[in-house]
Amino acid sequence: MMNNTLKNIEEILLMGPGPSCVPASVYTALSKKTLGHMDPYFIKIMDETKVLLQKVLMTKNNLTLPVSGTGSAGMETCFVNLIEKDDPVLILINGVFGKRMQDLAERLGAKVDTLEFEWGKPVEVERVKEQLKTNSYKIVAVVHAETSTGVRNPVKEIGELVKEKDCLYLVDTVTSLGGIEVATDAWGIDALYSGSQKCLSCPPGLAPATFSAKAVDVIVNRKSKVPNWYLDLSLLTKYWEGKTRVYHHTAPVNMLYALNQALYLIVEEGLENVYRRHLENHKKLVAGLEELGISMLVEPEFRLPMLNSIYIPKGIDDAAGRKELRLKYKIEIGAGLGPLAGKIWRIGLMGHTAHPENVERFMAALKGILKK
Amino acid sequence: MMNNTLKNIEEILLMGPGPSCVPASVYTALSKKTLGHMDPYFIKIMDETKVLLQKVLMTKNNLTLPVSGTGSAGMETCFVNLIEKDDPVLILINGVFGKRMQDLAERLGAKVDTLEFEWGKPVEVERVKEQLKTNSYKIVAVVHAETSTGVRNPVKEIGELVKEKDCLYLVDTVTSLGGIEVATDAWGIDALYSGSQKCLSCPPGLAPATFSAKAVDVIVNRKSKVPNWYLDLSLLTKYWEGKTRVYHHTAPVNMLYALNQALYLIVEEGLENVYRRHLENHKKLVAGLEELGISMLVEPEFRLPMLNSIYIPKGIDDAAGRKELRLKYKIEIGAGLGPLAGKIWRIGLMGHTAHPENVERFMAALKGILKK
Repeated sequence: MMNNTLKNIEEILLMGPGPSCVPASVYTALSKKTLGHMDPYFIKIMDETKVLLQKVLMTKNNLTLPVSGTGSAGMETCFVNLIEKDDPVLILINGVFGKRMQDLAERLGAKVDTLEFEWGKPVEVERVKEQLKTNSYKIVAVVHAETSTGVRNPVKEIGELVKEKDCLYLVDTVTSLGGIEVATDAWGIDALYSGSQKCLSCPPGLAPATFSAKAVDVIVNRKSKVPNWYLDLSLLTKYWEGKTRVYHHTAPVNMLYALNQALYLIVEEGLENVYRRHLENHKKLVAGLEELGISMLVEPEFRLPMLNSIYIPKGIDDAAGRKELRLKYKIEIGAGLGPLAGKIWRIGLMGHTAHPENVERFMAALKGILKK
Repeated sequence: MMNNTLKNIEEILLMGPGPSCVPASVYTALSKKTLGHMDPYFIKIMDETKVLLQKVLMTKNNLTLPVSGTGSAGMETCFVNLIEKDDPVLILINGVFGKRMQDLAERLGAKVDTLEFEWGKPVEVERVKEQLKTNSYKIVAVVHAETSTGVRNPVKEIGELVKEKDCLYLVDTVTSLGGIEVATDAWGIDALYSGSQKCLSCPPGLAPATFSAKAVDVIVNRKSKVPNWYLDLSLLTKYWEGKTRVYHHTAPVNMLYALNQALYLIVEEGLENVYRRHLENHKKLVAGLEELGISMLVEPEFRLPMLNSIYIPKGIDDAAGRKELRLKYKIEIGAGLGPLAGKIWRIGLMGHTAHPENVERFMAALKGILKK
């Protein structure tokens, strides 16, 4: 018998900072019959998922895999495998997720330097250049798409600076992957993580990650064991690679089915088409908002198409407005975080959410709450 | 369009060491529409899941939650939150998962003592008693149901020894929970983790865990920050408890639906009935095996009903036999691990797998491969 609480789950239009709407075929994949994590057919699905991930990540990295946890477990995986005590790390911060990187790296005993930038503005390449002139780091880390503000950071440009140094380049693409270009190899990224529940339009629970040969070399030559058994890449590799697979932990089998299908849909549509769809729907949303006199937090050049930070319309109460959207119109949007709480709303157009009918439904709902 | 690889997934009778067969209503729950991780209705589902977990764990512990990872992430959560550098820890080992505890605790800088016992035999309470007479520990850790051997360890009896000491009692119930009694509070367990994919019959991906007030006190009074942001219970608590929920990581929403439904089914059937069903099917299996002259690794008193280690029948090749069961009969069983590789097979009767028709189907298949 089905629990009534679950039976009564409504369909909500997910226009917040993730999770995003999930295509019907991804739900179908999710609920396919569970196979054993060492089953030969399941290993075939793992191998195929890896190839799909490489395509979407634009990388030839052999060590490419979905980590068995949500996006933040991807962040944890990158730092815990690459950092040893007292390693110097530079973190570029202009939002919640840059701050999270700092917290996480400090917990692991790294010597963390930070460059902080105003929330809502991009990381300034010139300041990074100055910092790298006089300091050496093992890792330079930055968030591509700051989900807390809607800013796109200049990951390609920073990569050109890092390339000139003997240094690893670590990039958070949780919100960008599958929505704007993420050219892992071309941009010189050494370690990257993402999340399944943003522009990949899979439910939350997995963190795609990839590592360059240079990063793998650092991991293989660690002096100390990775202080995290669950996320130790030297063990995970033996399960994800090679002819004979070695059991590590029981993989989240059904979530991996769903991720496989979500990636398959993106590759079928074509990366360029997917990016264009995100951009067009973003433009449609911005045009609608401007008609209502609502302004955007971020300057056009650095706006993310998939995460639109808008100033809360005048006369509308933050919490009450979001509550009305959720309860009356069945639309979820996101609140502001940190210094932007109470000032902005975050409107997601991620993955399967990025379709014109959703923009239209949101604009109609917004007009509804503005009228009162 | 659906990826053909996924479309062609066959239904396999999962009689290995987990994952186990998943009931239809759990698949239905898994593929319900994704809600936001801060959605009020989703928080209602979280609260309900916590109450269901408390029932199945026989605990009043407030800090009871499913960790966002598979069973080993539960192990990692318990150790990383409770251990600080140089803490003395005693680990009782008689299989793969006790060894894993040791590896994990050592990575975190604990001073680890171990008592090792023969694989296939239980932990000896007398030796533990002797050890505790002359040594003090912050944590004593043991695996309840050793999935690598099919041994039930005397967790209740060890708990009585630990209670007398100023010491935390940490228990792995990955394979036992939902199959045999796990009396968290009555047995004095301070920290416990499990997995969703064994006797709970939910797909893999979540690790139920619970912590006593004494364990919470240790966590709250740590001198150092938990060296793992993703699994830091002081942060997770703010998301799982209280009137105002604070975002930590994006919860694996759909997996939590599935766990809720899986727990709901167990509570509906009644814990005693569930334990009896496991025991009866275990007896049916053992009777059938004995008829064929196949013997069990573990002495009757310490056998797990849900994980049956049998000596590989004479004349049957380990790998070829398992392959035939999988390909011809669509049944998965488990191989032996470590010193038992090539000697035993592991036959799971976990959760939804523990039904007479599955025992009968397995026995018929076994006779099929023995005949040749």
